[in-house]
This record gives sequence, structure tokens and C-alpha cells, in this order.
Amino acid sequence: MLKKIVTFGELMLRLAPDGYLRFVQANNYNVTYGGGESNVAVSLRNFGLNSIFVSKMPKNEIGQAGINFLRKYGVDTSFVVRGGDRVGIYFLEKGASQRASKVIYDRNHSSISTSSKEEFDWEKIFDNVSWFHFTGITPALGDNVAQICIDACKIAKKKKITVSCDLNYRNKLWSKEKAGKIMGDICKYVDVCIANEEDASDVFCINAKHTDISRGKVDHESYKDVAYELKKMFNFSKVAITLRSSISANDNRWAAMLYDGNDFFQSKEYLIHIVDRVGGGDSFASGLIYSLINNYSSKDAIEFAVAASCLKHTIEGDYNLISVDEVKKLVKGDASGRVQR
Amino acid sequence: MLKKIVTFGELMLRLAPDGYLRFVQANNYNVTYGGGESNVAVSLRNFGLNSIFVSKMPKNEIGQAGINFLRKYGVDTSFVVRGGDRVGIYFLEKGASQRASKVIYDRNHSSISTSSKEEFDWEKIFDNVSWFHFTGITPALGDNVAQICIDACKIAKKKKITVSCDLNYRNKLWSKEKAGKIMGDICKYVDVCIANEEDASDVFCINAKHTDISRGKVDHESYKDVAYELKKMFNFSKVAITLRSSISANDNRWAAMLYDGNDFFQSKEYLIHIVDRVGGGDSFASGLIYSLINNYSSKDAIEFAVAASCLKHTIEGDYNLISVDEVKKLVKGDASGRVQR
Amino acid sequence: MLKKIVTFGELMLRLAPDGYLRFVQANNYNVTYGGGESNVAVSLRNFGLNSIFVSKMPKNEIGQAGINFLRKYGVDTSFVVRGGDRVGIYFLEKGASQRASKVIYDRNHSSISTSSKEEFDWEKIFDNVSWFHFTGITPALGDNVAQICIDACKIAKKKKITVSCDLNYRNKLWSKEKAGKIMGDICKYVDVCIANEEDASDVFCINAKHTDISRGKVDHESYKDVAYELKKMFNFSKVAITLRSSISANDNRWAAMLYDGNDFFQSKEYLIHIVDRVGGGDSFASGLIYSLINNYSSKDAIEFAVAASCLKHTIEGDYNLISVDEVKKLVKGDASGRVQR
Amino acid sequence: MLKKIVTFGELMLRLAPDGYLRFVQANNYNVTYGGGESNVAVSLRNFGLNSIFVSKMPKNEIGQAGINFLRKYGVDTSFVVRGGDRVGIYFLEKGASQRASKVIYDRNHSSISTSSKEEFDWEKIFDNVSWFHFTGITPALGDNVAQICIDACKIAKKKKITVSCDLNYRNKLWSKEKAGKIMGDICKYVDVCIANEEDASDVFCINAKHTDISRGKVDHESYKDVAYELKKMFNFSKVAITLRSSISANDNRWAAMLYDGNDFFQSKEYLIHIVDRVGGGDSFASGLIYSLINNYSSKDAIEFAVAASCLKHTIEGDYNLISVDEVKKLVKGDASGRVQR
Amino acid sequence: MLKKIVTFGELMLRLAPDGYLRFVQANNYNVTYGGGESNVAVSLRNFGLNSIFVSKMPKNEIGQAGINFLRKYGVDTSFVVRGGDRVGIYFLEKGASQRASKVIYDRNHSSISTSSKEEFDWEKIFDNVSWFHFTGITPALGDNVAQICIDACKIAKKKKITVSCDLNYRNKLWSKEKAGKIMGDICKYVDVCIANEEDASDVFCINAKHTDISRGKVDHESYKDVAYELKKMFNFSKVAITLRSSISANDNRWAAMLYDGNDFFQSKEYLIHIVDRVGGGDSFASGLIYSLINNYSSKDAIEFAVAASCLKHTIEGDYNLISVDEVKKLVKGDASGRVQR
Amino acid sequence: MLKKIVTFGELMLRLAPDGYLRFVQANNYNVTYGGGESNVAVSLRNFGLNSIFVSKMPKNEIGQAGINFLRKYGVDTSFVVRGGDRVGIYFLEKGASQRASKVIYDRNHSSISTSSKEEFDWEKIFDNVSWFHFTGITPALGDNVAQICIDACKIAKKKKITVSCDLNYRNKLWSKEKAGKIMGDICKYVDVCIANEEDASDVFCINAKHTDISRGKVDHESYKDVAYELKKMFNFSKVAITLRSSISANDNRWAAMLYDGNDFFQSKEYLIHIVDRVGGGDSFASGLIYSLINNYSSKDAIEFAVAASCLKHTIEGDYNLISVDEVKKLVKGDASGRVQR
Repeated sequence: MLKKIVTFGELMLRLAPDGYLRFVQANNYNVTYGGGESNVAVSLRNFGLNSIFVSKMPKNEIGQAGINFLRKYGVDTSFVVRGGDRVGIYFLEKGASQRASKVIYDRNHSSISTSSKEEFDWEKIFDNVSWFHFTGITPALGDNVAQICIDACKIAKKKKITVSCDLNYRNKLWSKEKAGKIMGDICKYVDVCIANEEDASDVFCINAKHTDISRGKVDHESYKDVAYELKKMFNFSKVAITLRSSISANDNRWAAMLYDGNDFFQSKEYLIHIVDRVGGGDSFASGLIYSLINNYSSKDAIEFAVAASCLKHTIEGDYNLISVDEVKKLVKGDASGRVQR
Repeated sequence: MLKKIVTFGELMLRLAPDGYLRFVQANNYNVTYGGGESNVAVSLRNFGLNSIFVSKMPKNEIGQAGINFLRKYGVDTSFVVRGGDRVGIYFLEKGASQRASKVIYDRNHSSISTSSKEEFDWEKIFDNVSWFHFTGITPALGDNVAQICIDACKIAKKKKITVSCDLNYRNKLWSKEKAGKIMGDICKYVDVCIANEEDASDVFCINAKHTDISRGKVDHESYKDVAYELKKMFNFSKVAITLRSSISANDNRWAAMLYDGNDFFQSKEYLIHIVDRVGGGDSFASGLIYSLINNYSSKDAIEFAVAASCLKHTIEGDYNLISVDEVKKLVKGDASGRVQR
Repeated sequence: MLKKIVTFGELMLRLAPDGYLRFVQANNYNVTYGGGESNVAVSLRNFGLNSIFVSKMPKNEIGQAGINFLRKYGVDTSFVVRGGDRVGIYFLEKGASQRASKVIYDRNHSSISTSSKEEFDWEKIFDNVSWFHFTGITPALGDNVAQICIDACKIAKKKKITVSCDLNYRNKLWSKEKAGKIMGDICKYVDVCIANEEDASDVFCINAKHTDISRGKVDHESYKDVAYELKKMFNFSKVAITLRSSISANDNRWAAMLYDGNDFFQSKEYLIHIVDRVGGGDSFASGLIYSLINNYSSKDAIEFAVAASCLKHTIEGDYNLISVDEVKKLVKGDASGRVQR
Repeated sequence: MLKKIVTFGELMLRLAPDGYLRFVQANNYNVTYGGGESNVAVSLRNFGLNSIFVSKMPKNEIGQAGINFLRKYGVDTSFVVRGGDRVGIYFLEKGASQRASKVIYDRNHSSISTSSKEEFDWEKIFDNVSWFHFTGITPALGDNVAQICIDACKIAKKKKITVSCDLNYRNKLWSKEKAGKIMGDICKYVDVCIANEEDASDVFCINAKHTDISRGKVDHESYKDVAYELKKMFNFSKVAITLRSSISANDNRWAAMLYDGNDFFQSKEYLIHIVDRVGGGDSFASGLIYSLINNYSSKDAIEFAVAASCLKHTIEGDYNLISVDEVKKLVKGDASGRVQR
Repeated sequence: MLKKIVTFGELMLRLAPDGYLRFVQANNYNVTYGGGESNVAVSLRNFGLNSIFVSKMPKNEIGQAGINFLRKYGVDTSFVVRGGDRVGIYFLEKGASQRASKVIYDRNHSSISTSSKEEFDWEKIFDNVSWFHFTGITPALGDNVAQICIDACKIAKKKKITVSCDLNYRNKLWSKEKAGKIMGDICKYVDVCIANEEDASDVFCINAKHTDISRGKVDHESYKDVAYELKKMFNFSKVAITLRSSISANDNRWAAMLYDGNDFFQSKEYLIHIVDRVGGGDSFASGLIYSLINNYSSKDAIEFAVAASCLKHTIEGDYNLISVDEVKKLVKGDASGRVQR
Repeated sequence: MLKKIVTFGELMLRLAPDGYLRFVQANNYNVTYGGGESNVAVSLRNFGLNSIFVSKMPKNEIGQAGINFLRKYGVDTSFVVRGGDRVGIYFLEKGASQRASKVIYDRNHSSISTSSKEEFDWEKIFDNVSWFHFTGITPALGDNVAQICIDACKIAKKKKITVSCDLNYRNKLWSKEKAGKIMGDICKYVDVCIANEEDASDVFCINAKHTDISRGKVDHESYKDVAYELKKMFNFSKVAITLRSSISANDNRWAAMLYDGNDFFQSKEYLIHIVDRVGGGDSFASGLIYSLINNYSSKDAIEFAVAASCLKHTIEGDYNLISVDEVKKLVKGDASGRVQR
């Protein structure tokens, strides 16, 4: 039987102008749905695992369309609570060259942000489940949601389910102080901690040296210390950090490292010509979960996760619509992009 | 110098699937902006008058795009306050034949609904203005907005500005009871009252006989009584009522009547093949304001207003992008739609 | 627990130019998937039942996209066999006014047409299932598929599952003679027989009088005899016949009748302004199955089925994306298409 | 060997907003090419004849794209002279219901309008040709072009080629006086004269009684006199008049009559739901030429021509992409628009 | 009060195929409007200044749509004269890699090119204005327009308005000889002269050494002499030269220099991945005007102008829809294009 | 008189999602047609030669649209046999960065694959023809088609027509063994042999050293031996080999070599930013044929062919819509992609 993974978070309506049009030029928006935890659910389903996405969506057609969007990719949405007022929205303007991509959030008052404990029966949701994943965005949606997260974590731990969390700090949602406090509480239950090149600093004040992100300078070596500190702080079994060097809105370098408590494993670095980089971090988390749930070695796990997320950058939308075979082909070194006939 | 009209209300982002696609089928949304009062502002500007739209929009690009959308059509947006959290949204699915069009509102917490009295300097806004128009939607946005409406009305009256109000009842925004109470307060300041075939009943419990709207049956004669009652209740100088007989989502009959305190004037009735009927009522209000501000006779006024709004039904989006010449051609009887070369 | 329905047939890739463009004008095709039995599965899922679609699709992404298309609408695709060479295709050019819509089939050699008995474990598929539905298209795909149909029918009967069949004659797939012979064999297992205004004549040589379909003339009365003959021939428990009068490619009259062995029930007739009429018959079958599975009276059943399929004609694509509430509103007489806010 | 037809005129770039959008709303234009004589050339090629289009187009890619557009439909463009400054343009806004379609011409200074006699070797062009067709638009492009027309006519007559001319008066191009004078000169060479319900009046002051075109009122009977007068004036062998009754921009009645010097033949009248009516007259001319070149009886000729042009109204763009079989099916009475599978 | 800038020139309709399609492949054109001086007007309005665009446009909807396009971005169009025959058009095919972008002009006989002196009341237009800008394209439209330019310059000088001119040589509009003569007359009134890497050579025969533009080789050092010579020739207060090194249609290097009579200031050079390079020079002029009108130092001015125009290359259409904050962020060194949430 | 070239092969319907969308994301497909031999026919027609494409297409509109697609570009399609069941299809998903482009073929049972000898009258087809070209795909379609190829070759040789063949191995169509055998038979008739960096190895087991294609490593020097061996094996007059180094799906290096029996000529190598690389090899063949038919020197021929095919990579669709002038400009060294006004 296929392993089951649960993710919990917000599913947002994503509205994006065509191509590189600025918001003020747009006469139509491409309609997709996304959000950290749903992104992971879809990616894992594409890798062949069973994934369950837990959230709350309003009873109208805008909510239903979001659920349909997930169902299309095979995600189990039967535990999505229906109710509340609205679907959170994010507007995405794609940048190019020196012009940055821009995200405008309109997510306050969304259904999930007004959900309550009673709406989620974690005992039932976690039936036969192997892994539970969420990101730091979920608790940032409100104290009620943070509490639901903690509840879920407790039951997951009780059921010996592995818990992973991507710190994913969003300064529009909460202050660094509040994030530090609440994520500190939550991280006690977390086995696998995932962060990007900024999160550890933003949430837990753990800074990497020799790094100036807005100039595309990221010192990989110094992130060993960050990973070490993170692990020490919360006794994580594993810490993974993605390392993005942003050359321009079109071109990024992308790598990651994994600290398994014993050793540090640096992945290959890929130079990526970007189609859509939103969801890049989530695709990394998915790759990592997939490889860990399948007992890959640390070295193989980090290479799989980075290759998976490298490929995500070539796909429109939040979701990483990539198969295990495609990831493995890249891990083995075929980055030539030659036509497959 | 051109006459100036002020309208006050909400400008919403309108998101609509292509053609007749249902929401769950949509992969992109057409992006326009609209809302009763902005619709009137644009239509009057197209008729050659100066129009000022007053509202509040957030400082981000989604707000700016809305302002640009109005500026494109020449509306003066210099009194739009910038601030607040979000642009109200409405999702529009176009119906066909027996399937009804569907509107889903996501307008709570919009910038205008959180505006305060101090943000609008009506003395300045109303400088050299001839007419002030709003609809019943504006006060329905919240008690604060209702109060701003009343303030504006008072200053308008002081400055001898004609005030028109389209009752425009929206049951998603307030109860009939509350609407009745607050609109009752506001109507004291109103000179020209506009209603559709349902408003008088919904807001002031004045019912037309022999009318079953969901079966497309509208008894024109009985609306004389409705107009008479309305006028009596608030001492309006004029009452106009639009009369839509909905044969199907594609085909409507459309007429109106005007009661000027002395006589009742029934317009011609048009059979319309609909392109987009949203904003139909607003286009009627615009036609009426235009003809009254230009001292048309009651008969000519109602014919102009109905012809103008007939033509609106053939245009995509909320706005009636029709010229005075086009309206006059229809009033004179050329409804043949022959190619103009 | 929700009732479960199984349908069995081909899922085709549908490629259609935009709007009313002819094939030779098309620079892009809209991509959807459809086919009689999948259409029924989706419609029943929209009505709130569980539906399982059984078929065979190739292992490539064109096959996967078809499965995703069904999953999006909640259909259970876990019994779709993967293999074979290709997805059957149909090209659809939408007609207008006096110009007919045109379908070009490219469905030979599709995966399902090359499937074999061993690939379908009907005992397992029919676990806890209440209803089994297919159309005359499925056995027409080849002798192997016809045999699979008969197998399925036998097991269905054994398990006391109601079997319905829509005759759906396609002259591109087989001759009238062959259709008559094989459908004759199959109909022995069928409880509910559905036909359109031509099928009984094409398949079983049962003709309606006073009918000239290419002139839009359909004599409802004479179809009573057709229904009676059909029932007599195969001892169906119920026979339903849809009655389309084609005024033009844009406008059709649409009605149906149901013979339950005791009485004949004529539905209301709707005049429909067509958005997309493909799948109209399947939406009728869905409405009929839904109402019969829920024990509607014969009168209510035929009205529900006709109203449901009336609404289908207003929706792009093969699928009837309509809720039970929307059907009931129309049954109750609200055909006005007024905006639902 | 297939019969060859030559047409001579302007090929314009046609720029049209999507659907029913007004010009001021358009963010893109659909790009096609058209013009009376090219429309006829394409339609006749679709009917299976050989057609040669003669014109002048600039040497740039905008000119080449026009030629490619014709080549796509099989028209022989080898006699299109390359040179001059620009392609004439017409902007087309599609009307709906009571709103008229609108054409804005930007055709001055086009290559064809600056062409000279020497550029066209009619002896060579007319080699083995059976029929020569042009419309009143061509001579209206300038005195030079009128003179080229007359030259062509003279050589055509010398070679016993049948000459047809569609009067097609355009008031933006010349006055009624000038049209009357020049067309009077040209009509001496014309065998088959084609006109619409206004042309005879505009060009030759021959008026139909009981007719008010802007109210959709066209008295068919009175056009007998018009045809008779036309024939008498220029000794045409045949006169055909199309009779459009414009109910609205969406719905037209369409019929025609043919006077063959002996009798008057009235066609059936079709009620058409319009997709695109531009080129309607040209499609009639094509149908007439096809049927006369194939020696149809007068009755059959007029029915074929009207049915062909009825179908044109269902097709986007200037060109009538209809086969002889499709026309014949309609002539025989199948106007039901039923799906052809 | 905001500073006011006036620009004077042609507003063209820009028609461009989607993406990288060649003209002969295009089935639709994206519709925008642009032209050197309107580009500057929009960009300065985006920077927060008031800008007035002066031109002449026909009275039809194609002209109106152009005005609306400018109004959308807040430009004052009240001095655009309405009349004349047509809107000038340019067709734009976007190049890629080694394939060059292609512009086909169809701008002869445009309204502005047929305008006369009396139509522009420069005394009124220049009321309270700080800066007047135009490019060498405007006088190239015809002797009448050149004379209007000189008139405007004279009145601007009288009113102590700073005058800037971008030489912008277009060989399709006039010969180098004629350009040299007329621009020589005009440059006497110019304070700030702007040129690209070719203009000085084309118009005034001032050549840069070591430069082969078609091979992407541009010697920055040698342009000091060019700037020095230009200044000497006309006693400009400032000379700015943009320096584009074209690696391919997708990738350009972009820099500029400013000579303020005392010193030469070289900007940073940016490597740009191009979205749309049309309007690049105009966006530079806008940045320069903005920084000079705000009394930036020469160093800061050239950096602001180059950064602003660098960002233009990432935006579709002629207009630089960039804010002052975005430019400043790039000037400060953040070229990473990281997502702004 | 223009030289005539004949090509023979399959014309496929090409269905491709927009931009970089994956198949499972696509809601529409761009519709074009292509295939090796038609690609060469179009390219040569663009270079100004006459080209005749020989194939078999079904009689329906999907077949007609393919013929129209070729006619648009001026190719003579009068020898395309009409009949058979279907148009072969290929689905194309465009890759990006490390993600490969993907082609899914659905070409079995196409009309051409079921064609027979009698349908092609090569004596007539080859009348006045200078060159005959096909690729290894054509004989791979079936033994019947291979035999038709050989027949054509024999008659071509008899008529002293130069025969070129691009080996173009497709492993989905036949095994290497079978390809080797049949291509071995055919190559006896071939004068000019064209191959890519893999074909010689796949078909004739001639391997290049130091080459690992999936890592973008191609050793140009070692292909001299490959060319030498090929020539020796079949006594070709010329052997040309294209050398693609795939850096990523977006960026390729592209070069070629020509062995004329005396010397080896290496072309320049281009670094290409790819728009669409399908048809790259065919555009090389076209360039080579054009230059050889025009008696270019070996050096000039290979440079022309490589420059032509370099430019193809910048154009959407299979066809190389490039003029001789554009190729020559690149050959001369202008690769700057600067705007041509």
C-alpha cells in the first residue's frame, strides 16, 4: 500500500497576469491555486505517494474550484472543511532581469484563518499516515490556526508520524518576534526542519556569514553553522537548508544542504533559467520528504530534493508536476534538456 | 464649461471567466473594474460631461489598476482616497438560456468599507458640481459609509446640488429591515429616486401587482402605483423605475417609466439580445441624469435613459461605452444594427 | 453512505476551435475530454453521488491528462486500466444558425478499443455499486469491447445492480445491422433503456411517424409507440426517449418522455439557446439515473432529467456541471436566467 | 480542366477586436485579410473552381501576410503586383442587438490605389479565363484604378469572358454623383449586375418603394422594378439583388432575386443568427457566379446563391469557407443545424 | 505643486504579434500605443510629475483609443488636437537570439503629420510648465511639423522652460542630410541633448572610434569625444549618450554617459535579459529629465536614468511603468530580481 | 525559371500547449502542421525556390487544414494524394532549462503510412525537377512507404535529379537493425547525406569519439571520421553533419561540418537562445540544398546552412520562415539582433 502524507495549510487563489505584464497592464489573470502545503501535497502525489490536504474552504464555487484544482492532481481533499467567508488570494506579477517578481497578498479573513479546533479530527485524519508536513505560514495565519497546528503535531507524535516543517517566514503575516516565539513552541514537535537562506535568521536570529542576498551572494559554507545551531536548538533529527543565489529574476543558482546530525551534505548547484520560481521551496520539501520516506541516504536525499526543486523552476504555477523518473534523470547528470521523443 | 457630476461608492475588481464558462471551468479571468457609482461616472463622461468618482482604494497596484481603469475613460479620480487593505472583488459567471448568471461577492473589508468621515472633504469635492449620485449599495457597506453618505447629501443640499439615488437593494449586504431604515433616512435628501422592478418592494415594502419576476412577468401598469407611493413617501421630485422582463439569460425585455409628480411616462420596450447585462441599471441612471441635467422633457428623458441602457446590454463589462449620438439614433427608431461604415 | 454508480466506455480527447471558427481557420484547439459514459459519471458526481469511470487509457501524458480531467470533477478513476497505444480523439467544430456542427472522429486503435476481458475485474469494480450505465458506443468499439460489456452486464445482474443503456447509435462505428444484432444481445440485461429521436429506428427499426428530423419536425405523440415497442421487445422496466427539435444550430426545442410500463410521461418542452449541445443526451441519462436511484416518481423523474439536460446545453464541453439545486429551480419554473447575486 | 475566374480589387488588412468588444476596450485585434474581390476569389476556390486574384500589395511582410492568407485557401496570387507603400486597413467592431457594427477605413494611399495601367498585363492574366468579376469599390479607389478596370473589361469582352460587377457603393470613397458617372461607363461592359437593397438607389437613383432600411423593412416586390430598370439602363444579361432585412445586429432576414430578362426569381428567405455578416454580399456573388458558370437554371441559381450567402453569415472573417455540398444541403431544406458526425 | 512637463510628438498605434511569432504567422496583434514623446510623458507621470502630451489624433475611435491609452496612465491629453485622417501605425515583430526585431512603419499621412501651426497655442500649453521635451522624430514628420517644433522651442525659451531633445534619427523619415540641417536649426534652442550610440554620427557626422554596432562592440571611452563635440557644436548645457551593446536580440549591455560641460560621468553597465526593448531610449530620457528637474548631481542623474531605462527593458510595450522607488532600489545595487512579497 | 525541388514524407498535425505549460496543464493546444520533408519544402520556398510536397492526407477537414497550412507558405500541394483514415499527430511539450522538451507521437495508421505505390506517379511528379529530398522517417513509416521511397529514388536517378537524404533516426518507428538494413538499401541512390550527431551511430553503427550527448559534450573533430566513414560506405558525393551541444533546453550550441570528398569544412558555432528547436535539422538540410543547388562553394554552403538553421531556432513551429537575405546577414557576422526599422 502506498504511504500516506498529510499536509495542512491554506489553499489560495493565485491570480497572475500573462507573461511578464505588470499588474497595471493586465487585462486577464491566469487562474490557478496554490500555497505551501498544497504544493507539497501535489508534488508528493506526482511522486506516487498518497497525499491528503487538510484545510478549510468556503462553500461557494471559488472554493470548489480550488478543491477541483487539487483533485485534478489526485490529492485527497475529503478532509477539507467547507465553510467560512472567502478564499485567500495572492496576486503574482512575474519579474524579469533586474525587475523583481511581486506578490500582493489579499488573504486576511480567509476561511482557514477563521477555522476552529473542532473542525479537524486529527485522530481520523492521521489514520495510517506516515508523515505530517506544514510550513511556518500556517501558524502565522492566526493564533487559532497556530493552536490547531500544535494539536495536530501532538497527535502526530503520539501516532509516531514523522513531522516536518518548513520555517517559511512571511513578514506580512507576523513579526519576527512573534514568529520566533510560536515557531519555537511548534518546533519541539518537529523531526525534520527545512529552511531557506533567510528563515533561520528571520525566525530564530541565526545568521549566516558572508551573505548578502540582495546581491545574489550566498556563502554555502557558513550555512553549516546555521544548520548546526538549528538542530541544537530544537533537537531536530534533520535540518535542510535551501540556498538560492539570485542573479536576476530570470537566472538563479540553486543548491541545498542537509545536516543529519552526523554530517553535512552539500548538493550540486544548478544554474536555472526560471519559468516560475514560486513553490521552489515547497518542491524541495517534497523531494526531501519523498527521499526520506523511502530511506534514501542523506547524500541521495539532498540530491533528489535539489534536483526535484530545480525542475520545479521550469514549470508554471505553484505545483511541481514532475515525476520521480524525471528527477532521477537529472540527478544522474542529464541536464541537457534534449528533446525526449 | 461642462457640467460636473460627482458619484460616490465602491470600485470593485471584477473577475469573469471567458464567454459562458462556469467558475469551475475557468483557467483565466477577464479583469475589469466596476460598481454602480463608477459605472455612472464613466457613462456620463462618455456622454460628454465631467464626472468625478469619489471612493477609497488601497495603495497597492491592484488599487492603482482600478484607478487607471477609470482614468482611461476620462473620469476624474483625484478625490479617490488611497489607503485601507483591499479592493473588493466580485466574481461573475455569465449565464445563458435557462442558466442564470452568478455573482459571488468577496467585498468585505474593502478599503471603502473601512473609510472614515475625515477622509472626504465634501465642501471641496462639490466645488462647482451640479449633480450628486450614489446607490443604495454605498450606505449598505457599513454604518460609517452610510454616515458619510448622509454628510455628503447634507452638503450637497446646502450647495443646491441635485441628488439622485438608485435604491439598488443587495440582500448580501444588509437586511430589508436595515435597508428600509437607513435608506429612509437618506431618501430625505434625495431629489431623483431610481429603482428597479424589485427595489421598492425590498426596501420600502411597496409591491407591484400581477408581477412574478422569476417567470419574466412584469406588469408595467402596476408600477405607476409603486412610483406614486415612493414619491409620496419621500417627496422626491422624480421617480424612475426600470422594468426588466427576463425571458432568459440571453433575452430580456427592457423598459422604464418616469413619474415627474404630474404624469407617468412609459418608455418604449426593447427586446434585447444580451452581451452583458451587469450595469444595466446604472446605465439607465446615467441616461436619466444626462437628460435631466440637460432639461429634456420627461418623455424625452425616459426614452433617452431607456435607449442608453438598452445599448449597455450589448457591451462587455460594467461600463456603458456609448455616445449621445448612438443613443439618439436608437431613440429615433433605428434599432436595425446595420453596419456603420 | 453515498450511492455508487459505475460507467464504462471510452474517454476521448476533444479538440475544438474557439467559438464558431471552422476547422480550416483554427490556430488553436480547446482541450477537454469527454465521451458518453464519462459524461454521465461527471454529471452524477455533480449531483452528489459517487461515480466510478471504467476504461483504458495509454500510459503517456495524453492519457494522464484525461484521467486528471475526470479527477478534477471528483470521479473515481482508480479502475481505469493504463496501457494501449493512444487516446481516441474527436474534433468538434461548432455550428451556428443554418450551419451544422461537425464532428470528425479519430478514435480507431484507441486503448479501450484494444482492451481485453482480463483487464477488468467486474466483481471488484461492482463492489457496493447500485447502478451500471453504458451507451451503445461502447460495444460498437469492437467485438472484444462488446464482449466485455456483456460480461459486465452479467455480473451486474447477478449482483442485482440496475443496468441502464443509452442506445446512442453511431454510424461511423458500425452498421445498423450489426448494431441491431449486438445491441439486441446486450439489451437482455438492461433495465432502463434510453434513446434519442433516431436511435430506435437506427438500431431496432422502430420508426416514429410524422417526423422529419432534418426539418426540425418531431412528433412527440408518435414516440409513445416507439417506447412501447422498445419495452415489449426487451422487457425493459423503463424506456426514456429524448425529443430534440432542431430549429437551427443555435436554437433547439428539447423534451423527453418516459414509459414506465404503465404510463407515458411527457416532460415540459424547453426552447434552448445553445452554448454547446454535445453531451446533451448523456446529461439526460444522468438526470434520469439520479432521479430513479432516488426513487422519484415517473413524472418527477422525467422532469428532472429534461431540466438537467436543458441546462447542459448552456455549458461548454461534454460535461454537465450543474447542481441538483439548479435543476430543481428550473423544474419549479424559474427559467428566467436572472442574475443570482 | 477547372474553369478559371479572375477577380480584381483591393486586399485589406482587417483588424477586429475579440467578440463584441468595442474599439476602446480592445487589447488585441484579430488579424485577417479581406475585401470584396478577394472574398469572391476564395469562395469560388472553395466551390472547386480555379480563381486568380489580381491586385497590388507592398513588398513588406504585411503585404506578404495578405498574400499568404489568400494562398492558404488556394487562390492563385501570382498576378499580384508587389510594390507601393501600404496595405489598406479596415477596423471592424462587431455590433450586437440594437448596437450596430462599425467599420473604420484606413485605406487611403494603399498600394492598389497608387497602381498604374502598365502593371497589369490583362492579355496574359485572362489567358483561358471564363469569368471576370469586380465590385464598385475597385473603380472608387481612384481614377487610375477605374481606368484599369475599364481596360480589363475591354480585354475581357474581346476574349468573350463573362463580366460581373457588384455595384457595392461606398460613400466614404466617392460621391453618389461620381459613382453614378463612372459606374455608368463601366456597366456598359458588364453582363451580370449584382446589387444590394441600397446600391441601385445610391448609384443610379433607382429607388424601391415601401422600403425603410433602418427599420428593417424591405419590400421584396418593389425590387422587381429596380431590377427591371437596371437591366434596361445597361442591357445587362442578368440582374441580381440581395435583400437584407436587418432585425438587429444579431438577426437578419436574407433573400435575393434574379431577373434574367425574362422572369423574376425570388429566393427563399432565411432568418439568420449572425456570426459575421461582413462579406455576405460577396458570398452571394460567388454563389451566383458558380451557379451561372455551371449553367444552373435561374431558379436554381438564385437559390444556390442565397443559400451560400446565408451560410457565410455563420462564419468569422470575410471569407465564405463553405463547400458546394453544404450549400446544396441547405438548398434542399436542411436548415436544422444538426450535428454532422 | 507638482512640476509640469510637456512633450510633443506622434502617438502611434503599435501592432505586435504574440511572443516571438513572425508577422506571417500572426493571427492576432497586441494593441498598444506608443511613440517617443508619449513614452516620456507616461514615464514621467509614473515618476510622480505632471505630464502633458501634445499631438494631433483623428476624431474616430482609433484615435480615441490612443488618447484613452495615455489617460489610463494619468497623462494630461487635453491639448491633443482632434482631426486629420489617420493614426500612424507601427508593426513590431519581436526578435530572438540572432534574429533581429523588425519594425514596419505605416505612419505617413497621420493626423500629426498634417497638422498646422494654428492648431497649437504654445503660450497656453506652456502655462506653468518647467520642461519641454521632444525627439528628432517629430520634426522629421514634415516641414510643417518641424516648424511647429521651432515655434514651440522659441516660446519655451522665452518662458525660461528647459528644452531637451533626443536626436533619435530615423532613416525611413528623412535623409541624414536633411536631418542634419533641420536638427541643426532646432538644436540652437535645446538645453539638454540626448543621443544614442548612432545618432551623433547619423545626424551630425560625429563618429565614435573603435565601434562596430552590428557586432555588439561599443567603445565607451570614445563617446566622450562625441559628447564633447556635440556640446561644442550647439552649446548644450548637457549632453547624454546611451550606449547599447547588442549581444543578441535577447541580451544587451546597457550604459550611458553624461557630459555636463565640466566632467564626463559614466554609468554602471547592466547586462539585461530583454522583454521588450522598444522605448528604451525614451525611458532613459525620462529618467534623465526626472533627475535633472529634481536637481540630482550629474553622477546621480546618469545612474538614475540608466537604471530606469534598464528596468524598461523588462516591460512589454513602449511605456516604462516603473516607480521612482523601483529605480532607486536598482541604483542602490539590488539587481537580484528576488520576489517582493 | 525557378528551380523545383520535391520532398516526400508525412505531414503531421502538431499540437502544443502554450509557452512552457506541461501537457497535464494545457487547456488549449496551438495548432500547426509539420514534419521533416514539409519543413524542407517550406524553407526552400521561403528561399525563393519552387517546392513540391508529396504525401497522402485524408479527405476530411483535418487533412485539408494541413494542406492549407502548406499552401499558405506557397508550397505546391497538387501532388498530395487524398485518402486514408487519419492525419498523424505529434504532441509537443516545450522544455525549459534542465527540463527536456517532450514529443508524444500518435502517428500510426496515418494516411501516408497506408499509401500504396500506385498512388504516386513519380514520372509526372519529377517533371522539370532539380532535386529530391526525404528523410529517414519516411521509409520508417512502413515497408510500403520504404518501397515507394526506393521507387522514387530510382526514377530520380534516371532523370538525373540530385537526391538528398537526412538519416533522421526515430527509435519509436523502427529498430536500429531494421533502420540500418533499409537505409542501407536506400542510401545507394543518395547523393547528399545529412546526419545529426547521433544518426550515424544509430543507423550505421559509426560512432564519434569523446562525445557524451546527454552532457552537452560533442567533439567536433571526431565527426570528421564519421563523415569519412559514411561517405566511404555509400559513395555519397557529400556528407553533412549537424553538431548540437545541448547546454540546456533553452541554450544550445549549434554548428555543422561538410565533407565534400576532398575536404572537411567546419562551420562557425552559434550559441542560440532557443524559441523552438523542432525542425532545426530540417532547416539545415534546406540551407544546404539551397546553397548546393546554387553552386555555393563547400565553405559557403556549410556556413549558409548553419546560419539558416541557427535562425530557425528563433521561430515558433516546425517551419523556418527566414529569407535568404536574413541568412546572409548572419553569415556576414551580424548576430546582434538589433531592431531593424
